[in-house]
Amino acid sequence: MHTENIKSSAINFRSVARALTIVENDLAGADDLLKSLSFTKNTPIIGITGPPGAGKSTLVNSLISLLLKDESKIAILAIDPTSPFNFGSLLGDRIRMAPHFNHPDVFIRSLATRGSLGGLSAKTIEMADVLRASGFDYVLIETVGVGQSEIEIAGLADTTLVILVPEGGDEIQHIKSGLMEIADAFIINKADRADADVFANNLKKIIGQKMGSHTPVFKTIASQAEGVQEVAEFIKAAVGVKNERRELLMTQKAYKLIQQKLTQHIDKKKLQQDVAEALNHKNFNLYSFVDTYV
Amino acid sequence: MHTENIKSSAINFRSVARALTIVENDLAGADDLLKSLSFTKNTPIIGITGPPGAGKSTLVNSLISLLLKDESKIAILAIDPTSPFNFGSLLGDRIRMAPHFNHPDVFIRSLATRGSLGGLSAKTIEMADVLRASGFDYVLIETVGVGQSEIEIAGLADTTLVILVPEGGDEIQHIKSGLMEIADAFIINKADRADADVFANNLKKIIGQKMGSHTPVFKTIASQAEGVQEVAEFIKAAVGVKNERRELLMTQKAYKLIQQKLTQHIDKKKLQQDVAEALNHKNFNLYSFVDTYV
Repeated sequence: MHTENIKSSAINFRSVARALTIVENDLAGADDLLKSLSFTKNTPIIGITGPPGAGKSTLVNSLISLLLKDESKIAILAIDPTSPFNFGSLLGDRIRMAPHFNHPDVFIRSLATRGSLGGLSAKTIEMADVLRASGFDYVLIETVGVGQSEIEIAGLADTTLVILVPEGGDEIQHIKSGLMEIADAFIINKADRADADVFANNLKKIIGQKMGSHTPVFKTIASQAEGVQEVAEFIKAAVGVKNERRELLMTQKAYKLIQQKLTQHIDKKKLQQDVAEALNHKNFNLYSFVDTYV
Repeated sequence: MHTENIKSSAINFRSVARALTIVENDLAGADDLLKSLSFTKNTPIIGITGPPGAGKSTLVNSLISLLLKDESKIAILAIDPTSPFNFGSLLGDRIRMAPHFNHPDVFIRSLATRGSLGGLSAKTIEMADVLRASGFDYVLIETVGVGQSEIEIAGLADTTLVILVPEGGDEIQHIKSGLMEIADAFIINKADRADADVFANNLKKIIGQKMGSHTPVFKTIASQAEGVQEVAEFIKAAVGVKNERRELLMTQKAYKLIQQKLTQHIDKKKLQQDVAEALNHKNFNLYSFVDTYV
């Protein structure tokens, strides 16, 4: 793709979109396109995740407004997990991000992930890299906090923000087990709720005790843009700081891509036919089937 | 394993635990053990998932109490997603399930999944199959509603229950996009909340309109065991009904196992060393790296 040679002030959104489409659908030229990407600008990937109802979209909108004040160019990849049964994404085009939809410095793309039959992460990695090489100042990846993408985002993003809402601490154990370790910062949104301070203090205590870390905890009311400036400053400060995890991140990306490469020859339709056939046999055992299949 | 020949009334928990350990850690004999499993009892796998705070553990406890009244033997596989950075599971042994921990007819096992560097689903499939072949009447798989396991559970379970809490419908779009299609039934827990009826009606409307299906919606107050009997009846009724998805389920399981088999030779430590080395080169491109690596 030729966008990387163009100044940041004139990113050709149309060619970015075309490059993404080529990569997303694995069209002719996808491999060469990926291998020719160069990452001169060192654009950071900011992952934003959290459970449903946390107000991610509102917060992202508010963040974008602030980052745009520096004349930044921002790309957003909104990931919609779909079912493993291929009903397709129901979410569509993220109408909630509409405030910035027509802004000339904001590029938005939805990616409907493919569910558990593979392909999720490799595609996400590739599309994020296309955006990183396209001259943007920030690539934001927002994942809906259901499905497989929530934890995996940390394997992709340079900085991961985990958004939570004060929830009385009822299942704070559960939140923790999935999300504690992947967060570079926590954002407690809807911080005007009565139990926000208690929640924030509990969270800080857990971070200190269990993780022995100093992961910052921000409190925001995204719907009123309150507290969001601090988050924007955190993101700006994180940019350019050498990321200690870069090696691990790259290893994970490499592994996903290798995994995809090794399995891409498997014809899923054919596999289903063969499984259906094998199921007719009385003593069907999945492990013996797999053993003889590859 | 020899447990499958023993009558249901005398499942040897110790040998089940040992078989699970062999499979979980891929110890000597794991392959043979899996290939020798026979599923004479057609034990159903019941998947239970939902976002954090929905009260899954309370509901599972309440369900178990009811299913035990039929002298059923129940196995529970509680899945703890861990980070992709291998900090291990923080959740530990699910103390919330303690009420049944010492019940002679209830077998509980936690499985800390391995995050994004592979292994999650293959192991889960294998362990669930060991339990299925061990003479239990039900295998319940509970997943914490963060991480990768939430959607994938539907690729594993014969019947999937999605637990939700009335949440004002603020991000009902998001809940829907991840969970709508995988549910065989919805359970709205904490149904004593003020907005429970509105939420239930909205959910039913969406199910009918968007999905064109008649997925049942149950309302429960698990902490008081209210409404749980209906859920137990639903589970019992689902058992033995020929599952139309069996072929698709088996295909997905087969795919995961094939994927694991094709990638198991990749030495992740070596890969990380090679990535670290490659990153020193100025024009590092991940796609060229992967291309030459396999």
